[in-house]
Amino acid sequence: MHKHISSAQNPAVKRLLQLQEKSRSRKKEGGFIIEGLREIGLAISGQYTIAALYIKEGFQEEASVVTLINSLQTASVTILSEEVYRKIAYRDGTESVIAFAKAKNTSLQELQLPQNPLLLIAEAPEKPGNIGALLRTADAAAVDAVIIANPKTDLYNPNIIRSSVGCVFTSQIALAPTSEVISFLQDQKIQIFSAILQKAQPYHEQDYTQPTAIVVGTEATGLTQAWREVSTQNIKIPMGGAIDSMNVSVAAGILVFEAKRQRNFI
Amino acid sequence: MHKHISSAQNPAVKRLLQLQEKSRSRKKEGGFIIEGLREIGLAISGQYTIAALYIKEGFQEEASVVTLINSLQTASVTILSEEVYRKIAYRDGTESVIAFAKAKNTSLQELQLPQNPLLLIAEAPEKPGNIGALLRTADAAAVDAVIIANPKTDLYNPNIIRSSVGCVFTSQIALAPTSEVISFLQDQKIQIFSAILQKAQPYHEQDYTQPTAIVVGTEATGLTQAWREVSTQNIKIPMGGAIDSMNVSVAAGILVFEAKRQRNFI
Repeated sequence: MHKHISSAQNPAVKRLLQLQEKSRSRKKEGGFIIEGLREIGLAISGQYTIAALYIKEGFQEEASVVTLINSLQTASVTILSEEVYRKIAYRDGTESVIAFAKAKNTSLQELQLPQNPLLLIAEAPEKPGNIGALLRTADAAAVDAVIIANPKTDLYNPNIIRSSVGCVFTSQIALAPTSEVISFLQDQKIQIFSAILQKAQPYHEQDYTQPTAIVVGTEATGLTQAWREVSTQNIKIPMGGAIDSMNVSVAAGILVFEAKRQRNFI
Repeated sequence: MHKHISSAQNPAVKRLLQLQEKSRSRKKEGGFIIEGLREIGLAISGQYTIAALYIKEGFQEEASVVTLINSLQTASVTILSEEVYRKIAYRDGTESVIAFAKAKNTSLQELQLPQNPLLLIAEAPEKPGNIGALLRTADAAAVDAVIIANPKTDLYNPNIIRSSVGCVFTSQIALAPTSEVISFLQDQKIQIFSAILQKAQPYHEQDYTQPTAIVVGTEATGLTQAWREVSTQNIKIPMGGAIDSMNVSVAAGILVFEAKRQRNFI
């Protein structure tokens, strides 16, 4: 039999809310909330462990929900009243399932890289929408891994999950301090192409067919000094407009897809 | 002498608020609100007519504000109390000047195109953030014009101005129904490359060195049927990930910069 919760005062409700809202709670519990069947499905494909399902009252008999429950024999199932569900869910509308999943904390050493990897590295990205867009680009390009250097936020912020449309679950992603990321790249003999204007060459004149990391910083402050000292080559996108500014996820898309083009999208 | 407004009940305040909030008001008045010195400066460079300036009390003696006032001999100047200013401004923080500018309604026929133009066309984009990002990309690539086909919103939504970081003022932009845009492109003998998956070829195998329009639709519904019938070639970005989805401004950036690359960024 499934548990039922119909009171917003239930301690489980408070816990779920804190998991949604507080990075600290996610860290303490080693887990996070996923909303939506599609996103939960992507997390399962991405080998995340789903520990619990929370289903909006009335949806527990839906075929897609039954299939999900049956596929997750070890996850606890709780039915939430509509009021409680609405309180916890970030999204309104048609979604009817929330999951509690265990975080993956992939270290740099745990990344499984092919012989000739292409990596996307973002340093200190802050806005969840930008991170989500970067992860969508990483998924579309099928880069071999994403590394977030000097992370400012945990990966499992609900706005990152949402804006990535679940792509946070589809790539290998490691978070680490910049110094460790640089050591890792050097140890692995991966070329470092940093999006830094100083001493930069046009991005499209570089050769990305060898093991390559493309490194982007924030729009506001760019990359830290450490990257300037270790770059194989600084690269820039030639801009011809009135404003020398580009959304970081757009810039990353242009750079990564030029690398993919040179690699014949293999 | 400048006018002063210190009451939020002043009819001018209501008018400014409506210009911020309602497309209908902007249309009726043939004008719109710009916040921020930088954005106002870009609008002036883009040959917009600034009809009125509204300055937060205490900032009218700032050097940059004085310079602005002196450069606009014909604009009326009104000092707003801090309370009134805050009520009207979308942004909090450091900005201190708002302008009322006259809209430009550039028709397709008024676009000034070079012999071998590169155009970015977006059909029915809805989210102001996406439109802003598209306009940033258009500025960075210095495309010769942007055309919004079947527009869902006016250009001067404050969230578009903000998310474009003023790039809404730096490109030639025309809005028109899709049927008129297609006739225009055909009359001008401009190749049409539509981001449509059906019968598509990889984008990087096409030749964009002739007069070219790159056409993108919305993430949700793509491009309308009309484009399928007239495309020189449908194009797609090869995607290798779990999800066949990319932010429209990222996709547009990848396509437009491939065209720029082929044109040697000239």
